[in-house]
Amino acid sequence: MVLDELTHPVVLAPLAGGPSTPALAAAVGDAGGLGFLAAGYRSAEDFGAELRELRGLSAAPFGVNLFVPGPDDADAAGLRAYRNELRGESERVGAEPGEPRYDDDGWDAKLALLRAEPVPVVSFTFGCPAPETVASLRATGAEAWVTVTDPAEARIARDAGADVLVLQGVEAGGHRGSFSDADDAEGYGILALLRVVAGEIDLPLVAAGGIADGAGVAAVLAGGAAAAQIGTAFLRAAEAGPNPAHAAALAEETATALTRAFTGRTARGLRNRFLDDHTANAPRGYPHLHYLTAPMRAAARKRGDAGGFNLWAGQAHRLAREAPAGEIVRELGEGARAALARATERVGWGE
Amino acid sequence: MVLDELTHPVVLAPLAGGPSTPALAAAVGDAGGLGFLAAGYRSAEDFGAELRELRGLSAAPFGVNLFVPGPDDADAAGLRAYRNELRGESERVGAEPGEPRYDDDGWDAKLALLRAEPVPVVSFTFGCPAPETVASLRATGAEAWVTVTDPAEARIARDAGADVLVLQGVEAGGHRGSFSDADDAEGYGILALLRVVAGEIDLPLVAAGGIADGAGVAAVLAGGAAAAQIGTAFLRAAEAGPNPAHAAALAEETATALTRAFTGRTARGLRNRFLDDHTANAPRGYPHLHYLTAPMRAAARKRGDAGGFNLWAGQAHRLAREAPAGEIVRELGEGARAALARATERVGWGE
Repeated sequence: MVLDELTHPVVLAPLAGGPSTPALAAAVGDAGGLGFLAAGYRSAEDFGAELRELRGLSAAPFGVNLFVPGPDDADAAGLRAYRNELRGESERVGAEPGEPRYDDDGWDAKLALLRAEPVPVVSFTFGCPAPETVASLRATGAEAWVTVTDPAEARIARDAGADVLVLQGVEAGGHRGSFSDADDAEGYGILALLRVVAGEIDLPLVAAGGIADGAGVAAVLAGGAAAAQIGTAFLRAAEAGPNPAHAAALAEETATALTRAFTGRTARGLRNRFLDDHTANAPRGYPHLHYLTAPMRAAARKRGDAGGFNLWAGQAHRLAREAPAGEIVRELGEGARAALARATERVGWGE
Repeated sequence: MVLDELTHPVVLAPLAGGPSTPALAAAVGDAGGLGFLAAGYRSAEDFGAELRELRGLSAAPFGVNLFVPGPDDADAAGLRAYRNELRGESERVGAEPGEPRYDDDGWDAKLALLRAEPVPVVSFTFGCPAPETVASLRATGAEAWVTVTDPAEARIARDAGADVLVLQGVEAGGHRGSFSDADDAEGYGILALLRVVAGEIDLPLVAAGGIADGAGVAAVLAGGAAAAQIGTAFLRAAEAGPNPAHAAALAEETATALTRAFTGRTARGLRNRFLDDHTANAPRGYPHLHYLTAPMRAAARKRGDAGGFNLWAGQAHRLAREAPAGEIVRELGEGARAALARATERVGWGE
């Protein structure tokens, strides 16, 4: 399995809609972690081009992440009301809202691409593919990883034939990977989720959520994970081409919160004007709200207005460092080893 | 320091309002963990009697926990409306609501008791005592521990002279120990909280929240904690005198949620009828709501109606075992050592 061959137990989060670049994935892979490339928010063609670029940059194994399409069930009246609510924000950033609409993120075309040009690991977010889909990818030699946020999702993924489960705790930045975006989701912290799932499912587990330094990696390894999946700690990496406004906000003690305001699906970001003004009234409706807010967010990003776009961040964002991605991978891995040694000494192991 | 003398890095959570008994604290201490006795919800006299009982049962060091009084700021109209809302529940369990009121949980009397009869550790929840109060207890030889839920609270506690910080993650069962019960609290998961606080505060840290087995303990040790504080995993211990309805619900895959419905202060419990019916409309108002709902909850408990009272539980509650408390302590400690050894082997330490 790919996880067994890593020099450092560090998996790059896919960072869809953020700095998912071939250069970042290559740097993580070359340093002995596992790089990841996001298929989400890209056409199958663009994704294919990035895939080929990554293969040219690095010979290390890597993963790609796909969004599993959900139902087209956004409420039209709710979307209209939300569009009205955004009027002030729209004027402020000087951009009209976009047209809310459904799409399946090119699901079939991306699967076809991955069957034609196999990759080492395919991971899934926002749902669990059908067993036949999982089997068709495994038949190419790929490992199938599924992101889950509670034990019920973990069982579904296991039963669908997943090779690895990516457990995402509520601390994580960006979208919750939940199969559905329920209001009453438990919101498991990563450590509790890891122990509860490890108690009933015998698959390798990758832990995600608020892990941003070597001791954090060590913690989930001690908790039974095979590796940590890490996003926010790479957002300030040189290869991520960090947005200056976003990078600066990450380094502060800014609070984070869960919100549907930007995309219609629950995600964690730094609290800013947009999030605070619109979280209360944002309806569920993905990817409709993504398309509705996208032009406004792009305008705010361009103006360097950190109040006007999504600043995805996990709860440990303050620990993110500005450094080359390969150096971050090595520090995470070596820091994890050192933290395990300190903890072992503390409990008198070997006495 | 007391933490350095423990055989197992396991601290019993105070479990105020639950099974905080001298027998449970003594059993944990005698097994090489740190027992705790809750002062909360008891008169200073009753608490003093339990303290003397504990001293008679065990010579091991132990801690006591005090609720720091908050402001008397409950909204009268909100309390009246909530009382009306509870009418159906009141009829169902056959008990009238109690009179909502403020009190300071006997703060001065309990402090006086602890100055007259010093204990090894005094911990605080719901706030940070004044530096003079901390100093007066430290002058008796006690260590002062303060429960915190975010980095800002951690700095306040450090500046007040705390010897140890108890970091409580959002996974934890029972009341959030936050200094104020804000609607927009960050809700840090324990692992992110541990790493962020460890990065700026040089005090021993005890980690709490969803830790219920040896690998969970190992995780927070690897994350830099000196010990884990554990509550839910002791709720089924023989010495806890577990409520049968509560103990049975803990063993199921029941979801948990945060709620003010029972006490007017945010706490995590198993979802049941009372929680689901009343969380949405429960106002902030502690301990007013505690007194309002107490007779109804007592009646439900007596009838074995698990839908009608607070079933406090952390997110890893399913891992709680029915066993003597001393055996649970030893399993947690030995399980932690084994988990650290497995993780160390996984990352090739010593190769």
